[in-house]
Amino acid sequence: MSIHVASVTAPVNIATLKYWGKRDKQLNLPTNSSISVTLSQDDLRALTSVAASPTFTADRLWLNGKEEATVSNERTQACLSELRKLRQELEGKDTKLPKLSQWNLHIVSENNFPTAAGLASSAAGFAALVAAIAKLYKLEQSMSDLSRIARQGSGSACRSLFGGFVAWEMGEKQDGSDSQAVQVSTLDQWPNMKAAILVVSQAKKDTSSTTGMQLTVKTSDLFKERVAHVVPKRFIEMKGAINAKDFEKFAELTMKDSNSFHATCLDSFPPIFYMNDTSKKIIKLCHLINEFYKETIVAYTFDAGPNAVLYYLEENEGKLFAFVYHLFNKVEGWEKKYSQDQLNQFSSLFEDDIVPILKNSLDEEIYKGISRIILTKVGPGPQSTNECLIEESTGLPKSM
Amino acid sequence: MSIHVASVTAPVNIATLKYWGKRDKQLNLPTNSSISVTLSQDDLRALTSVAASPTFTADRLWLNGKEEATVSNERTQACLSELRKLRQELEGKDTKLPKLSQWNLHIVSENNFPTAAGLASSAAGFAALVAAIAKLYKLEQSMSDLSRIARQGSGSACRSLFGGFVAWEMGEKQDGSDSQAVQVSTLDQWPNMKAAILVVSQAKKDTSSTTGMQLTVKTSDLFKERVAHVVPKRFIEMKGAINAKDFEKFAELTMKDSNSFHATCLDSFPPIFYMNDTSKKIIKLCHLINEFYKETIVAYTFDAGPNAVLYYLEENEGKLFAFVYHLFNKVEGWEKKYSQDQLNQFSSLFEDDIVPILKNSLDEEIYKGISRIILTKVGPGPQSTNECLIEESTGLPKSM
Repeated sequence: MSIHVASVTAPVNIATLKYWGKRDKQLNLPTNSSISVTLSQDDLRALTSVAASPTFTADRLWLNGKEEATVSNERTQACLSELRKLRQELEGKDTKLPKLSQWNLHIVSENNFPTAAGLASSAAGFAALVAAIAKLYKLEQSMSDLSRIARQGSGSACRSLFGGFVAWEMGEKQDGSDSQAVQVSTLDQWPNMKAAILVVSQAKKDTSSTTGMQLTVKTSDLFKERVAHVVPKRFIEMKGAINAKDFEKFAELTMKDSNSFHATCLDSFPPIFYMNDTSKKIIKLCHLINEFYKETIVAYTFDAGPNAVLYYLEENEGKLFAFVYHLFNKVEGWEKKYSQDQLNQFSSLFEDDIVPILKNSLDEEIYKGISRIILTKVGPGPQSTNECLIEESTGLPKSM
Repeated sequence: MSIHVASVTAPVNIATLKYWGKRDKQLNLPTNSSISVTLSQDDLRALTSVAASPTFTADRLWLNGKEEATVSNERTQACLSELRKLRQELEGKDTKLPKLSQWNLHIVSENNFPTAAGLASSAAGFAALVAAIAKLYKLEQSMSDLSRIARQGSGSACRSLFGGFVAWEMGEKQDGSDSQAVQVSTLDQWPNMKAAILVVSQAKKDTSSTTGMQLTVKTSDLFKERVAHVVPKRFIEMKGAINAKDFEKFAELTMKDSNSFHATCLDSFPPIFYMNDTSKKIIKLCHLINEFYKETIVAYTFDAGPNAVLYYLEENEGKLFAFVYHLFNKVEGWEKKYSQDQLNQFSSLFEDDIVPILKNSLDEEIYKGISRIILTKVGPGPQSTNECLIEESTGLPKSM
């Protein structure tokens, strides 16, 4: 049996300037440009293996061990068809190439983090899908070119095709040919950017992002201002802050933009709420920490859900964890990264004069609203890997 | 002893188009016009008695049985000095009049509702103060004239000088002489407007309104849009809806404006949160009720705190309470207004097909976040009363 396989891992990215609103639903064209930090794949990644064979009778997709019907949905098929078109061009130029573009695909993908955590896994998933097929097809397109394809699978997926600090330029053209991801700054230029994700317990599912942003575009009066003036200005300022490695400015813009995005959700009708009381307490905590040190050492940001992502610089980890480990030491996730000695050191950094401040202004049982902490940092873009999820003899997932 | 006394009651008002932002802090001049409904004094009112005597050695103020130092604060003194000026004019024209303008004042005020409930009592308080002194001084100024004085005590107090539906026109002049309350529609024109206040339990005090609005004006990018375009349009539309007794339109504008105001709070930096998870569940409940009946029968609005005020028309009370009594029957406040028979009837209106809807989309323990319900309706403006809180022989509070 002639089976061709390729495997790639791709990262999660968390926007610091939020994507919220589509100007074209089908092409996933946004109403504003956005910026994100790519997170380390040691902690959060999708691993995707793809196989093509003339013997496959249909495109098939397995996600985290379960076959999914989503391979036939519009978004996935849009990506596959664009990639096949590019492969076809290669095959046209070099007729000796196997006709992979005409064969069905088996796609097997796994995340190294629980999907239940409510972390946007679709960005990593679509980035890995596109990058894996591009590798299988031996495409020569640039990452920005591929990002335009990934964008059609899930808007924010385009940003997961780069490591470090990434911008998604909204573009102007109707066909979306200029709506793509570009590198703002590489991982190497600001490698000490770290992230702590506080996974907030939640009873029920939110409004989906797609539904939510549609409602905001349609009903929020304040959204127009965000898109027309607030974000364009912030987009330039944030790129500048990243290039200058100005954490204070980066943090301020990140926090403000998270708040602005959630404000337009609240201004939608009916209003959309993604943050809950625990999220708000985390916001309060961050402002309190920055005030305590009289220096901006932490920034929060919240996507379309209650989870908090805290950005900070490695050199301030002790200062930050003096608070965060004190408040959240009961939560799982610390042991994975730190020895007991190191954790004890965070405790020792906690100063007694913080106690009355916390008592006065914060719910000390805040940890009860958190299910785990994920400690990670800025990381690289998609990586080729030899780890393969597909059995080459059968073309089926290895675990099945 | 020559003591002159006068007593007045004044109502609470709850804005349906929110006042948020001062363009002049000293004069309490707002950045936008606002609209409110005056609530019945049977349920919520301040009763204020004032006395003037040449024997009083200082201005003194007793609030709910306790002497307060606030009589000497800037805001109270601004009101007193304006009122004394008007009295002086009268005394100048008619020299036989006693020189009340030169005498110190004793002011005694009591609310008929617990201040702990977090209901804006300062509006009723300053309206009663100004109206009582105007009565004592036999001033001939119109309510709009007096509203400009009350405004200097507490911005929203100016709206409590009228019953029914009231607009506070922001005005343009720097001296505030055109920033005053006017009647939009009288109590008689739309008497079937009712209100239910769900008092939300809260552990800690919010950011004060004055501090909060200052921060919003200074830091929120979206606020500019609210003030420049969103509210001016809504102000005209809401006056139109009230005059047309168009509840659906009135409700939509009321809900949207509450959300818009809280959105600009969230867009402040650091962000301000007045609503909590219980507030959000009440918002969800209201949208669910309106959807269930395929008709807008209820509107929510939230001031600078977590309490919900629900507006509805008398004829829809059964429909509304089918839900609200079902969910909140354990909460105190029902017995004051309804017999057990009437309450049973609300229960009987509850249809079994609502149960699965509530189960699916709402926390059925929502009542745990509520401490009481206050059932009231639209009401008249300040009322002269013979009930006097001051002992005429001593000039001191009766209860002391």
